[in-house]
Order: sequence, then structure tokens, then C-alpha cells
Amino acid sequence: MTRVLILHSVGLLRSALMALLKAEGSFDVFAACWRTAWRQEEGLRPDVCVVDLDCPGAASLLEGGWEGPVTGTGTRLVVLATAERPGALRKAFEARALGYVDKDGSPCRLVRAIRQVAKGERFVDESLAFGFLEASRVPLTARELSVLARAAEGESIAEIARGLHLSNGTVRNYMASATRKVGARNRIDAIRISQRAGWV
Amino acid sequence: MTRVLILHSVGLLRSALMALLKAEGSFDVFAACWRTAWRQEEGLRPDVCVVDLDCPGAASLLEGGWEGPVTGTGTRLVVLATAERPGALRKAFEARALGYVDKDGSPCRLVRAIRQVAKGERFVDESLAFGFLEASRVPLTARELSVLARAAEGESIAEIARGLHLSNGTVRNYMASATRKVGARNRIDAIRISQRAGWV
Repeated sequence: MTRVLILHSVGLLRSALMALLKAEGSFDVFAACWRTAWRQEEGLRPDVCVVDLDCPGAASLLEGGWEGPVTGTGTRLVVLATAERPGALRKAFEARALGYVDKDGSPCRLVRAIRQVAKGERFVDESLAFGFLEASRVPLTARELSVLARAAEGESIAEIARGLHLSNGTVRNYMASATRKVGARNRIDAIRISQRAGWV
Repeated sequence: MTRVLILHSVGLLRSALMALLKAEGSFDVFAACWRTAWRQEEGLRPDVCVVDLDCPGAASLLEGGWEGPVTGTGTRLVVLATAERPGALRKAFEARALGYVDKDGSPCRLVRAIRQVAKGERFVDESLAFGFLEASRVPLTARELSVLARAAEGESIAEIARGLHLSNGTVRNYMASATRKVGARNRIDAIRISQRAGWV
């Protein structure tokens, strides 16, 4: 029986996804939030891990390198995603996720994804294809992204400059180019657009 | 049998919450997104409607006056909430929700909430109490909130001024007072803090 670990930051939705998989498929399902999974590391050893990319913390979990502390090697990754957040899709792709399930799809897609991924096969929902195209061309450079991410946390130009060891003028230039590239009207708009796309 | 309608913007989570309630309780459960519910208006007539306050669109659904188009009169409201978003709790309270379930709690709390609310009784998760305290004192005036909400959508000072029939200076004053009141460092920080709290 395929052992499935669901990682979700919200308790009730974690339980709900467990109930869904128990009702739909023949899986051995368990669920955890990031921190618990980390602590239970030794005992879990799932075959497939399902991660909702919209959870706060999902991005940094994936960035930390997927195979490792949480699940041990050998665990395959299925992500729940939306085409509107190409930045999140890209992070999952870079973390070598095998399964990509549209959060707006039907439950049987998730079941199929888990079955395929457990066999080591790739699974990608058609409806996410456009998001992948978008994900293939990050509009922003690494510098622009880090400036934007800090601005989104409320840092001033001077604070960002200090934090990244840049001059105020350089930070302003990065902000301006990021704003132009994402087609935003101003800095706040640039942050809004980039956050919705999952770039920052 | 209690007829329960789940309103959630994400298809997979809608199905998951349905599976949870089918497994845990003896309910007649169906689910929809806002738009579908609107269209199916005539047929639904649930006793209890469960709404996730974190869904985009939940706030405006509640603001539009709860009893009415979606469910018809007589439907009672249970919301899924977190203590960290007092603004969302307040909107649910103003829409006269009877049940308040912590999204980080166990599924049996949701089941109990639905049972109590179906009988016309109030249900509030203890863990949401602090959020309610926060919700009782909105830090911002209606004007400050509307200025902040427009700024969060990327509008410039001049655009906000035109939209609200105010002078640029007045909009700047509202932005400054909102920034001060929420303890923010600058406008972007004020938007970030207010969005996290669910005020805008």
C-alpha cells in the first residue's frame, strides 16, 4: 500500500485532504504540518508526499532541497498548484517534484497523480500547462527578486540597501526595473503582481 | 438530516471538506464555489453554510449581506477562521455568522459547530477568542480602510484621490494616519500588516 504524507499548514484542511484520500483511494494516509513532520522524521518514511504550494512555508521547504530532512531519500513529491502562480510552479520544478495537480481539479486527478508518482512516473495536469510556460521565463533577475521580497516585508529603500550591501540608488534602480518588467504602475503594484504570481 | 453547503474557492479543498464531513458526521453535504452557488440558488436551500474566510471573495460575499441571494433566508452561517485575521472575524460577525471554527482545530470541532448552529445556537472556538478581542477595536476608520484597500490594488495617490473624490493631500494624510495606527514603517508595510489582519 502506498504511504502518503500530506503536508499542509492548516489543520482542518490537512484533515480534509486526508479524508478525501481515504475515501477515494487505497492509500495509507497520514498528515502533518512542516514542524511536526520535521520532528517525526524518523518514523514517517512516506512513498509520496503531497504539498500545497499556497501554504506559507512551502516555498522555503522546497528551496531547502526536497530530498532530505522531512522525508528521507526516496520520497516522491506531488504538489497542489494553480496556473496563476508560475513562480510557485517553478520552485516545485526546481525541487524535482514529479506530480503537479491543479487545485481546481477533481479529486480523482490527485488520486491518479499519487498512483503515477508512486511508480516513479511524472504527472502534470493539462490545466497547469500555461503556468509552466509562464514559469519558464522568470521576468525578474535574482537581484530584483530579492529587492522586491524585502520591500514586500515593509523594508525601506535604505534598509534594503543596508541588508543587501548596495547603494540606495542601486536599490531604486532595481525597484524601477522590476516595476517596469512586471507591467506594474508603481512599487506597491509590482509587489502585488509578483506575490500573486508566486515570484516573491 | 442537516443540509450543509460548503463554499470554497478551491475545487480540491471543497471536495476535501466534503469528504471530511461525509466521513465524520451524518450530514447531507454539497459544495460549490461562489458563482455556482449563485446560479444554483433555487435548488440549494441548505440549513447551514460553511465558508472559509481566507478565500478571496469571502469578504465581499459577507459584506453583501449574508441572508439572501446565495442561500435564501433561513440558512445559518459557519465560518472557518484564524485568530490572526481579526478583520475577517469582524466581517463574519457583522454578517451574523453563528459558528466560528478555528482552521487549525480538529475536524470534530467543525462537526460540533454545524450541529449546534443548525439548532440555532452559537459556536465559537476558544482559540479564536483573542482574535475576537482584536476584532472589537478596528484600528482604522472607514476612510483610511478604503484608501489603503485602493493602494493595495496598486492605485497611485492621484488615482485614489480621483476615485474617492478627495484631494491628493487628504489621501496622503489618510495613508500617513493608517501607517501610524497599525504601527507600520511605511505604506507598503501598512498594506502588508492590514492584509494579514484581514482589515483590507
